[in-house]
Amino acid sequence: MFIESLQNKKVKEWCKLKEKKYRDETGLFLIEGDHLILEAEKLQVIKEIISVNKEKKADFYVTKEVMQKISNQKSISESIAICYKLKEEEIGSKVLVLDGIQDPGNLGTILRSAVAFSFDTVILSEDTVDLYNDKTIRATEGMLFKISIIRKNIEETLNKIQKDYEIYITNVKNGENIKKRKRSKKFVLVIGNEGNGVKESTQKFATHFIKIPMNSNCESLNAGVAASILMYEMDSDCDE
Amino acid sequence: MFIESLQNKKVKEWCKLKEKKYRDETGLFLIEGDHLILEAEKLQVIKEIISVNKEKKADFYVTKEVMQKISNQKSISESIAICYKLKEEEIGSKVLVLDGIQDPGNLGTILRSAVAFSFDTVILSEDTVDLYNDKTIRATEGMLFKISIIRKNIEETLNKIQKDYEIYITNVKNGENIKKRKRSKKFVLVIGNEGNGVKESTQKFATHFIKIPMNSNCESLNAGVAASILMYEMDSDCDE
Repeated sequence: MFIESLQNKKVKEWCKLKEKKYRDETGLFLIEGDHLILEAEKLQVIKEIISVNKEKKADFYVTKEVMQKISNQKSISESIAICYKLKEEEIGSKVLVLDGIQDPGNLGTILRSAVAFSFDTVILSEDTVDLYNDKTIRATEGMLFKISIIRKNIEETLNKIQKDYEIYITNVKNGENIKKRKRSKKFVLVIGNEGNGVKESTQKFATHFIKIPMNSNCESLNAGVAASILMYEMDSDCDE
Repeated sequence: MFIESLQNKKVKEWCKLKEKKYRDETGLFLIEGDHLILEAEKLQVIKEIISVNKEKKADFYVTKEVMQKISNQKSISESIAICYKLKEEEIGSKVLVLDGIQDPGNLGTILRSAVAFSFDTVILSEDTVDLYNDKTIRATEGMLFKISIIRKNIEETLNKIQKDYEIYITNVKNGENIKKRKRSKKFVLVIGNEGNGVKESTQKFATHFIKIPMNSNCESLNAGVAASILMYEMDSDCDE
């Protein structure tokens, strides 16, 4: 099917997916570019593909003007796909908890690093930014399809699983140097909000407080960087 | 002096500093917010302060409308300062070379981490994004005032200093695991462009190729994250 009208009903539906409200209502989200589409196909989460290039496999072909309207980017991709939101899986053994990350770029960067450092589960607190925000998706570089991501109440979740896991929480003042920490088999690493850190209601579950050693000239690291360094240190595979 | 006209000559001059061309011509740049102004004052690089708040120390007071025009941010700060570009100092002993970083946010994040991990010098290649871009400055969180930053031709510079320094360059395929590397007293760490890595003309100076060990499911890390993990590992102070 070829669509050239910006007023087409389908086009309007696709555009609505830029807003979290409609993504939540429909259970759909939008990805741009061949790399992401390839990863989504492997997981069989694609509902429909839209392309400006008639040589490409797609369910709908559109003009560049229509694509520009649907796209979140200045320089449009040839293809866009509408996907079903990912299924939430069981909690694994190397768990990252994000307790209020607000910046979509930070969330995407952290998910990318989580795959790099062999974490198997990411739990997003209810106040963490939307996983299906286009900036988040772009920053993951396709890695959102390679890790189990769950959105859950953190307090309830930690309460339920705490007896089986060591729980590591950052504390810039009193934390133990992360380089000296010994790893356990099943653990949870908690990363807090960019400005305010980990909530008090979450902190009480800590079995260990940790910190990244750094020069006193610098007060703090970028949240994506801090989370990545901690995951890097906690990835025992990195030692091999 | 109080300015309320958007057409005022001073206002026009300040607005021009959003463009690299005018920053280069005048040797000036603009910072926003009390935190950055405080750091700039310590270095005595402030030419003039502009504020909407008459209780604050400033050379010019302006209306909110004028401030909105000068500012790069949606929610304006109370004060902005025009600064003289930073002096370029000598090359120290813990040197970071950025060989073509393009994203201003990445550059800022990397500078922030460089201070955290006790690097003393950052050398920017001629094709690295402008240090005085407002997004770069914001991402440094004030750290650009706490480290020596030099813009130089990388090939010429490495050619000149190579006999005194070990030169570490990332190579995802053949690099040595960074965790197993021994540190030298004077060293250079080279970080390449987000998409293309370190240029061949720079690679030839490597005394060591290094890499961050990671899961094969993930092809690469965000450039700011990768640079920060490498600096973290090369900071011997982190072991103490």
